[in-house]
Amino acid sequence: MASAYDTDLDKNPANHVPLSPLGFLERAAAVYPDRLSVVHGKTRFTWSQTYARCRRLASALKRRGIAKGDTVAIMAPNVPAMVEAHFGIPMTGAVMNALNYRLDAQTIAFILEHGEAKLLIADTEYSPVVKEALALLKRKIPVVDIVDAIGPGGERLSEIDYEAFLGEGDPDAAWEHPADEWQAIALNYTSGTTGNPKGVVYHHRGAYLNALGNILVWSLPSKPTYLWTLPLFHCNGWCFPWTLAALAGTNVCLRRVEAKAVFDAIADEGVTHLCGAPIVMGLLLNARPDQKRDFGGRRIKMMTAASAPPAAVIEGMERLGFDITHVYGLTEVYGPAVVCAWHEEWNALPPEERARIKARQGVRYPVLEGLMVADAATLKPVPADGKTIGEVFMRGNIVMKGYLKNRQATDEAFAGGWFRTGDLGVCHEDGYIELKDRSKDIIISGGENVSTIEIEGILYRHPAVLEAAVVARPDGKWGETPCAFVTLKEGTAATAEEIIAFCRENMAGFKVPRTVVFGPLAKTSTGKIRKYVLREKARAL
Amino acid sequence: MASAYDTDLDKNPANHVPLSPLGFLERAAAVYPDRLSVVHGKTRFTWSQTYARCRRLASALKRRGIAKGDTVAIMAPNVPAMVEAHFGIPMTGAVMNALNYRLDAQTIAFILEHGEAKLLIADTEYSPVVKEALALLKRKIPVVDIVDAIGPGGERLSEIDYEAFLGEGDPDAAWEHPADEWQAIALNYTSGTTGNPKGVVYHHRGAYLNALGNILVWSLPSKPTYLWTLPLFHCNGWCFPWTLAALAGTNVCLRRVEAKAVFDAIADEGVTHLCGAPIVMGLLLNARPDQKRDFGGRRIKMMTAASAPPAAVIEGMERLGFDITHVYGLTEVYGPAVVCAWHEEWNALPPEERARIKARQGVRYPVLEGLMVADAATLKPVPADGKTIGEVFMRGNIVMKGYLKNRQATDEAFAGGWFRTGDLGVCHEDGYIELKDRSKDIIISGGENVSTIEIEGILYRHPAVLEAAVVARPDGKWGETPCAFVTLKEGTAATAEEIIAFCRENMAGFKVPRTVVFGPLAKTSTGKIRKYVLREKARAL
Repeated sequence: MASAYDTDLDKNPANHVPLSPLGFLERAAAVYPDRLSVVHGKTRFTWSQTYARCRRLASALKRRGIAKGDTVAIMAPNVPAMVEAHFGIPMTGAVMNALNYRLDAQTIAFILEHGEAKLLIADTEYSPVVKEALALLKRKIPVVDIVDAIGPGGERLSEIDYEAFLGEGDPDAAWEHPADEWQAIALNYTSGTTGNPKGVVYHHRGAYLNALGNILVWSLPSKPTYLWTLPLFHCNGWCFPWTLAALAGTNVCLRRVEAKAVFDAIADEGVTHLCGAPIVMGLLLNARPDQKRDFGGRRIKMMTAASAPPAAVIEGMERLGFDITHVYGLTEVYGPAVVCAWHEEWNALPPEERARIKARQGVRYPVLEGLMVADAATLKPVPADGKTIGEVFMRGNIVMKGYLKNRQATDEAFAGGWFRTGDLGVCHEDGYIELKDRSKDIIISGGENVSTIEIEGILYRHPAVLEAAVVARPDGKWGETPCAFVTLKEGTAATAEEIIAFCRENMAGFKVPRTVVFGPLAKTSTGKIRKYVLREKARAL
Repeated sequence: MASAYDTDLDKNPANHVPLSPLGFLERAAAVYPDRLSVVHGKTRFTWSQTYARCRRLASALKRRGIAKGDTVAIMAPNVPAMVEAHFGIPMTGAVMNALNYRLDAQTIAFILEHGEAKLLIADTEYSPVVKEALALLKRKIPVVDIVDAIGPGGERLSEIDYEAFLGEGDPDAAWEHPADEWQAIALNYTSGTTGNPKGVVYHHRGAYLNALGNILVWSLPSKPTYLWTLPLFHCNGWCFPWTLAALAGTNVCLRRVEAKAVFDAIADEGVTHLCGAPIVMGLLLNARPDQKRDFGGRRIKMMTAASAPPAAVIEGMERLGFDITHVYGLTEVYGPAVVCAWHEEWNALPPEERARIKARQGVRYPVLEGLMVADAATLKPVPADGKTIGEVFMRGNIVMKGYLKNRQATDEAFAGGWFRTGDLGVCHEDGYIELKDRSKDIIISGGENVSTIEIEGILYRHPAVLEAAVVARPDGKWGETPCAFVTLKEGTAATAEEIIAFCRENMAGFKVPRTVVFGPLAKTSTGKIRKYVLREKARAL
């Protein structure tokens, strides 16, 4: 029998609206029209201006034929256009595909091809690689140049620049709230540990919820001033463009993350919050005295992910005036989805103990519904003993729709009703998880995921290379750098410098091995390379 | 043609979980098991205890046959059982129906009958009225007595008390996350100034979202200490039981809102936040010196709704150490849905100007998708001139499912794709709305619309006035004229002539009350002034 609660109480336009972060922008512009939304050098926009610029962008894209379900790619550093793209592109019903500007032309070409981008907005700083990528494509993609007065310049690839493009758009044109919150909003390619990168699809519902998730775990107040040290192309800047609109905060842009620029922004723009890989902390800690600035006793909040920051780093940052929050996530879960939620009583612990606790990845975001370390085959949770290693699984509304045009990978990722991260970890007695092996293959260098398999594939193309294996080597500055173990073919010769030069010609600079070790590779009885042995060797170098 | 984004990217258990505030409790217990969840006199529970008690409650209800779609009613002051009911009842799939403990037996009987309550949990303080209500019913409803050691006692109506009932339940029993976020979670009857009360149905999605909405508009940090001065039966305590679970905060219970108890709780329990009607502010402002306590310079955050607090009240509260946030809502929108979002630059304004601005109802919660003042017939928004009166309309995910078993009222409320509030207001140039009256409260005098709220605001500025309410009095010449009902402060005196003279100095002549009646004001159980009673009195004068 149907309950009375199921009768005549249906959804209707008055009581059900698809969740979307686009509404945050509309509200920020309506409530705080004159508050600073975006700061970029001497350029300053208010929320009413940003809203108008985003509507112009949407309108201009529509005039060029962009419609629901289309992909619009963008390759830019942390400039206003990147913030605006998070709203202007989905306002047309299209999907924003932010490109990692450190990728090589071949990978960019693959992504543009696979994602079926219908238009590319690109900063002229990257014109060389963009030009090369476009030449590799079978079809022509219209380009809009971002010509940034405070950028380094670069070749124009199009007759139209971003500002002129906005000029084509009507700031008063109607825009589309999604009809369904499951509609795609963004496409982000993983670096791809095996084979080609996979296109992770986000939906409006998840973007809305993780934008709020950031507020919840970080106790973000209304109207924060946020510094863009995290690349905006990274999981949509961990959803922070939407978070900042929800709070009517201020986006302080940074084209290049340099110590002086970060200190200046904090001191001069009143930055209250920033995110970034551990490399950013290193940068600030190692800054010269003349680069540092006094914040007048203010505490700055910093969120960091990836490898656990060592005690000395955390201590040093605290002395510098930064309170560190440690988060963990993946492209597949909209950026951070796990947080080392802090307990006040831990503040009384000695620094090393605090750092050890802070290094744990932690617990689920309130907007993630499930997190567990479990047996990879049975999905049975491991005992909460801090020792038993299992795979990390997640479940909830901030898990991706799936991989674009890759049913098999999607099915594998979701097998068992959980998203399997591929990361290995343990669960402590208090339920906090800790990663033990970020994953078998991945290297995190300067905050970027580097696939060892990809580097190996290129090494194998070198005429003198018989066998190659790449592992992470700990690095004070970059966190990790790729270290290559190479066996040469009989009768051939090559120096480390030659191998490195070869790599440099064939891959993005951040992927190039910093170290090359020659000799036979340790193998299992079945002939598999024992990477953990190589990792130990690399660590000892 | 279906886009690639619509292909093989479906919802599945890994990436889609119905939104529900119940998950907040599970997380608070997992992450902060030892943090205080509920304080009630000397009783103190932690989040792991509260989670266990809620699971016991759910399990005990299930053993008594309570299942999905059933209604469980509760009539209690702000005691731990009320907080627990917000989780334990919906954990069975049932719907929580909190009863207003100030209602008469006949109305309680109507609600129990109409809502089809299958079980009633009731504090013995209310046994007389509950017993009478149960006697009026055609069927028998099992009762669970709340026997509170710090309550005033009262007749037992059942062999089982709440603690023994929890004892029947298994704290480790599985509980039900809703299969659909549209599932009903709560049933709240409007006070119904005319005719029978209507049963407003809330769903899990809306409860989840407004729990977060409170955090957003109030910049609520993690782990606040919240004092229950607002009745928990009021729109589910404005969704704050769920908000506090999301933040692992502390619920400080209060059976009775008395000045000394409030000051003591703030000073002794470290209360940081509270909500309440303006009458609570009056209570604190008029407290005797020996009832007041020093908070050591801490600022306490208070959210208030209903009629706009007059300048003198806001100023007085600020001097007492309270920062006031003004919100507005209705039972139909989960409590507050509109907030007078503050601009820092307003802090520089003179106190009366600040109070005038703060008295406006404001802008939509970020989780409410639409708010407008519009023509009641055409739904065309009125000009944002601060003058043109229209009806207030709302739209979004924190609007009720509808009225239970009342298709006609539901259809009327949602006609035109918006929820029509029945409140009249204006929209200021900056988009902030300000209520001018309930549609049935407006006075039409000599063809002019007269806002009773405006007159009341001025009456409150008179030094001798404690409370004031203005209604229409039929008039042979003018149609209607304003009639003021006034309660004077203790130890003050004023004549009708003096009050009228004061009004004449402060408002247009046609708005000045022609009649002033002194004495206490008739109020509803929730503290709302019963204007229809005053209207009848005015008619009989």
